[in-house]
Amino acid sequence: DLPLVLIAGPCQMESRDHAMECAEALKIMAAEAGIALIYKSSFDKANRTSLAGQRGVGLDKALPIFAEIKAKLGLPVLTDVHTEEQCVIAAKVADVLQIPAFLCRQTDLLVAAGRTGAVINVKKGQFLAPWDMANVAAKIESTGNSRVLLTERGASFGYNTLVTDMRGLPIMARTGWPVIMDATHAVQAPGGQGNSSGGDRRFAPVLARAAVAIGVAGVFVECHPDPDHAPSDGPNMIAMKDMPALVEVLMKLDATAKSFPVSID
Amino acid sequence: DLPLVLIAGPCQMESRDHAMECAEALKIMAAEAGIALIYKSSFDKANRTSLAGQRGVGLDKALPIFAEIKAKLGLPVLTDVHTEEQCVIAAKVADVLQIPAFLCRQTDLLVAAGRTGAVINVKKGQFLAPWDMANVAAKIESTGNSRVLLTERGASFGYNTLVTDMRGLPIMARTGWPVIMDATHAVQAPGGQGNSSGGDRRFAPVLARAAVAIGVAGVFVECHPDPDHAPSDGPNMIAMKDMPALVEVLMKLDATAKSFPVSID
Amino acid sequence: DLPLVLIAGPCQMESRDHAMECAEALKIMAAEAGIALIYKSSFDKANRTSLAGQRGVGLDKALPIFAEIKAKLGLPVLTDVHTEEQCVIAAKVADVLQIPAFLCRQTDLLVAAGRTGAVINVKKGQFLAPWDMANVAAKIESTGNSRVLLTERGASFGYNTLVTDMRGLPIMARTGWPVIMDATHAVQAPGGQGNSSGGDRRFAPVLARAAVAIGVAGVFVECHPDPDHAPSDGPNMIAMKDMPALVEVLMKLDATAKSFPVSID
Amino acid sequence: DLPLVLIAGPCQMESRDHAMECAEALKIMAAEAGIALIYKSSFDKANRTSLAGQRGVGLDKALPIFAEIKAKLGLPVLTDVHTEEQCVIAAKVADVLQIPAFLCRQTDLLVAAGRTGAVINVKKGQFLAPWDMANVAAKIESTGNSRVLLTERGASFGYNTLVTDMRGLPIMARTGWPVIMDATHAVQAPGGQGNSSGGDRRFAPVLARAAVAIGVAGVFVECHPDPDHAPSDGPNMIAMKDMPALVEVLMKLDATAKSFPVSID
Repeated sequence: DLPLVLIAGPCQMESRDHAMECAEALKIMAAEAGIALIYKSSFDKANRTSLAGQRGVGLDKALPIFAEIKAKLGLPVLTDVHTEEQCVIAAKVADVLQIPAFLCRQTDLLVAAGRTGAVINVKKGQFLAPWDMANVAAKIESTGNSRVLLTERGASFGYNTLVTDMRGLPIMARTGWPVIMDATHAVQAPGGQGNSSGGDRRFAPVLARAAVAIGVAGVFVECHPDPDHAPSDGPNMIAMKDMPALVEVLMKLDATAKSFPVSID
Repeated sequence: DLPLVLIAGPCQMESRDHAMECAEALKIMAAEAGIALIYKSSFDKANRTSLAGQRGVGLDKALPIFAEIKAKLGLPVLTDVHTEEQCVIAAKVADVLQIPAFLCRQTDLLVAAGRTGAVINVKKGQFLAPWDMANVAAKIESTGNSRVLLTERGASFGYNTLVTDMRGLPIMARTGWPVIMDATHAVQAPGGQGNSSGGDRRFAPVLARAAVAIGVAGVFVECHPDPDHAPSDGPNMIAMKDMPALVEVLMKLDATAKSFPVSID
Repeated sequence: DLPLVLIAGPCQMESRDHAMECAEALKIMAAEAGIALIYKSSFDKANRTSLAGQRGVGLDKALPIFAEIKAKLGLPVLTDVHTEEQCVIAAKVADVLQIPAFLCRQTDLLVAAGRTGAVINVKKGQFLAPWDMANVAAKIESTGNSRVLLTERGASFGYNTLVTDMRGLPIMARTGWPVIMDATHAVQAPGGQGNSSGGDRRFAPVLARAAVAIGVAGVFVECHPDPDHAPSDGPNMIAMKDMPALVEVLMKLDATAKSFPVSID
Repeated sequence: DLPLVLIAGPCQMESRDHAMECAEALKIMAAEAGIALIYKSSFDKANRTSLAGQRGVGLDKALPIFAEIKAKLGLPVLTDVHTEEQCVIAAKVADVLQIPAFLCRQTDLLVAAGRTGAVINVKKGQFLAPWDMANVAAKIESTGNSRVLLTERGASFGYNTLVTDMRGLPIMARTGWPVIMDATHAVQAPGGQGNSSGGDRRFAPVLARAAVAIGVAGVFVECHPDPDHAPSDGPNMIAMKDMPALVEVLMKLDATAKSFPVSID
């Protein structure tokens, strides 16, 4: 049971300068807190609620920026992929390829991602039970890839609402793969603002704390210098200035949680 | 308010002979019942619960068979697409391209499908509220395509269970697009058999009758000569021999429903 | 399979004159439509969302009014009971005692109601699966009472929302007891207006039509001369003037449904 | 923010000796752990899934036993009430009267309980949103009673399943009343065994840890020397021998949680 890992960054890559600023701030924060950090950003938001939503800088522009973050800051980077073609290209730079929740059962995408040899982080679909993720992981394992992460990001609960079932975390952990809690997407209100997804960032620390107390391997937290003006997921993202206090309490809870591991066997 | 349309056929295309046999049987049944028929089959099941699930004959083999069905039987055909690339190819033969529920928010796929000019049938995601389908339809409409169908196939309701909210049908109809009830997928128990999705075909007529009484434009019913031995969706599909009785009652309910249209405005 | 029965009336008894006016209007409407009618009203709303909600005239004042409705109009009457003590008293006049949904698992109440010999209509709790109603019915059957009705009124679906699973109707019917669709409570938004329950009466006909097309024994529809100014359940109740058109389409659907009975065995 | 309180005991009072044995064992455990303890047991299980379920010793027999526990062990005691009449009687001995979840909107019961002046612990209904508990608390507050506890015990999530939304804990805390996490009822599978409720006690520590990490005032844990042979809630109750380890980790998490209070304002 290794110490908690933090996957963090702004929802979408907005520009080279914005990305470097965020990555540097997170690196400093993580170093001070003594937490391992993976930098996250999306080059494309492929499933926005409405056509008018901004989609990001695109794969071509994003890769050199990710490369610069890796070279200058020494941070591993994570980004999400939406097609088989993107897997090979993104894996040239990204350490972790992420499969979006809506796509978590698309066999060809899982297999293409797995074949790159990158770490594959699959988000559990909002429509999936936690035990169903064993079949999802098996699709990746079939490629010989042995580095899989499984991420909880909430389940459908009525309309425009997600709920996180904390029992799902140890259930997914029975696969043997590390389990990550995505605390900021789990507080989304999907489609809840008519033409975009709403959410409530005040509850992201609530879910992160709960998950860490159970002993998750990592937390995924989207954060932004100015979330209220971010092009996507603004209602959910944590303000960068609030990250140190959040990480501090999570680290303390993690130390206790890892000393008293949960067992459901 | 036009009379009810039937979209029917086996879940996946199994072989040329199997497809022709099903299509002919359905054509005769539909002619006797006086119902318009669209023949449905998938060339690829791209999101099976587990890797071991059979996926179908593939696009290359399927297209000539669809072409033969159109030529010999005069039936319009519907098939589903999973990537942008498949849209153009499938649209050369298929009259209706269907967007799977899990993919209903993938902007590029919706736009690529819309651009083909084919009729586009989008299944509502299990994670989506009915009012959110207006944004989905708008992505297709942005291409200038003005032939869209919206299909209900159940919403996530706890784990491994779907529920169909009949209020969603008139809500989706407010977009102005015809609404289809997919009665056989709505009775799925997703992932409910561990390595495959379960379901209960006995309830498909229940949901079909309910939806028709509200005045839907069409019903989508997967059917098979021997559903218990079908390679996918067997637990949900209606036996071919039970189709005439189902269609008979649906036609009678439809006549009443269309004479007394529901209005929620 | 007998023809459809209608249980209708204003949510709560407001006064003697109001009750007589409603009952007379409903009697005339039912006679013209040729549908059997049971008059419904509550003497006490014992579980209002907030303490400020009006509760009704009380049992003492209600009983003579119910007696007058029975004597003058010849209508059977239904009212709900909340304690064991109320059962015996209410049964002196009421033909049908109704167990509220929240109380559907209170053993002593079910047994006390059953012992009166009145017809007992139990509403399925918003927290109950349809198959669980067999245990509820058995508590009443244990008293020797052999006149039980089971009513669907929606299941919890996320927060402040109900959904009606049409599969539940034939599932409950397997008990052998007649199944009623409560179309107006099923469109409630419980607690949805902060200090009171919201709802949307436009969808009550949607659910009623769907249920009748499946073959329910009866529909339960709260109605009011002026629902927007009713003391409770105003958002859900159907305007009295809209009842004839609703009953007309339900009768037509019922004739078809009863000719083609659903079987899930 | 006071340290964590533990409400614990067997689901139902089985006999005087059984109760004393449980209470003594819990008192010793709590003293060693340094946690405040309230002893919990039900004298009557009034809403068993089926009529055949055992209901407990009854109020008359239970009160002297509760009195003995208070006198000999100095423990405050909690029991649940189901009717207005029981409130006054139970409050002669019980320090805390508990309102069962199904009954949490029954105005007369809440008011009768509040009037006793006892501490009132209301369980949130499985059908209620956390923000709706403000109206419930207000019914008690209307009596002048200023000692209210609000307890989370899971919300309906599909059929025969509950889910605990951790966001509900701070939402309920906004009322100003202490919030308790009922970890063992929240893992129930209501009606899940046909004639009784199932559940899975392995997840009770998961939910307790999560809730404590957020900063709840107390945890409610039913426990039993031999849960697999208990007359009710056996599948959920924690074995008495497993309580010390659970309490130890909860106390450590609580110390961290209370040092870093969650704020959602």
